[in-house]
Amino acid sequence: MKQLHIISTGQQTVPEFIHIISLIHPYIDFIHLRERNWTAQTYIDCIDQLLDIGVPLEKILINDRVDIAVITGVYGVQLPTHSLPVKDVKKYFPSLQIGCSVHSVEKAIEQEKAGANMLLYGHIFSSRSKAGLPPRGISQLKNIVKQVTIPVIAIGGITPRNVQDVCESGANGIAVLSGVLLAQHPLHAVLEYREKLHLFKGER
Amino acid sequence: MKQLHIISTGQQTVPEFIHIISLIHPYIDFIHLRERNWTAQTYIDCIDQLLDIGVPLEKILINDRVDIAVITGVYGVQLPTHSLPVKDVKKYFPSLQIGCSVHSVEKAIEQEKAGANMLLYGHIFSSRSKAGLPPRGISQLKNIVKQVTIPVIAIGGITPRNVQDVCESGANGIAVLSGVLLAQHPLHAVLEYREKLHLFKGER
Repeated sequence: MKQLHIISTGQQTVPEFIHIISLIHPYIDFIHLRERNWTAQTYIDCIDQLLDIGVPLEKILINDRVDIAVITGVYGVQLPTHSLPVKDVKKYFPSLQIGCSVHSVEKAIEQEKAGANMLLYGHIFSSRSKAGLPPRGISQLKNIVKQVTIPVIAIGGITPRNVQDVCESGANGIAVLSGVLLAQHPLHAVLEYREKLHLFKGER
Repeated sequence: MKQLHIISTGQQTVPEFIHIISLIHPYIDFIHLRERNWTAQTYIDCIDQLLDIGVPLEKILINDRVDIAVITGVYGVQLPTHSLPVKDVKKYFPSLQIGCSVHSVEKAIEQEKAGANMLLYGHIFSSRSKAGLPPRGISQLKNIVKQVTIPVIAIGGITPRNVQDVCESGANGIAVLSGVLLAQHPLHAVLEYREKLHLFKGER
């Protein structure tokens, strides 16, 4: 089954975010908390609230802040480009699953060797948050998927209309931010993505 | 001997900061890296450069980012008010020394019980960075020092002229930011603070 990852936008309050997640969490595989302006205490409070609404720790990843991930016991971390080195995180915090953001084949291979458990690759299509930067496109995504054995999740400008193409590339899933969290009807949006992911029967 | 802690200002580039530390580090006891806008990679680079100029890991504390402290092997962390809970940091990362920022006697007692190894208390005098907030003053500092057994470091508006008063309060040292790092002559400034600290012979 192809995975659906939801990444927080950095534009919503904790109550707004929790409200949306309470509607959609049964239909998504992973929630990434990625909020540069939250304090550690805000992260902890948000995770407590996620647990309260029934989200299991196994669905939660934290961007960059490995320490918060260790203390809260979530599934793993997502390491952006300028974060801690994968090999060090693996060495000092072996209980964590490590997702890693990459933007090239070379980096993908390097991070798999370093111990990453999953790669987030993008941006695949042009998106508002990456305006002006050329998208990497489906052919590059296919190339990455061929070169590594760990799951590759595609990110950037993914809409229900292009999910099919992404799935056919061999990616193991998609990551969405505003397409769900800033949608007029987040639950409808998630169900639409989910339906497209279900339609794709091929497995890597 | 009373301690002299230097805390980074959040206003300097890594090269500027490293240059100043290269001049002053033999005369200071601890360097706190406290830079909200640095990535983990920037922290690691800066610590590498501190080691290159001869600063031992035992003199370095990192504000808030426990994960970076663990991976780089520095002496400890300084936990601000909205950081990770002291008891959790102690439990999951027992190798670290834990400094903790407090603003009241109640919190000081609570954080000592939770396992803090050192308290940073302030602000003692009015300072530019806390304009508008009433300073806590020497009498409150004396009160804190009496109520806990761990070292208390005073912060906020401390100049060479009031070091004597701070030392007489029983505080174990002082923490300075702009008074040294933004001084016209950082080395002169440090030597002036150091001289005043040396003049005070009483030990807690």
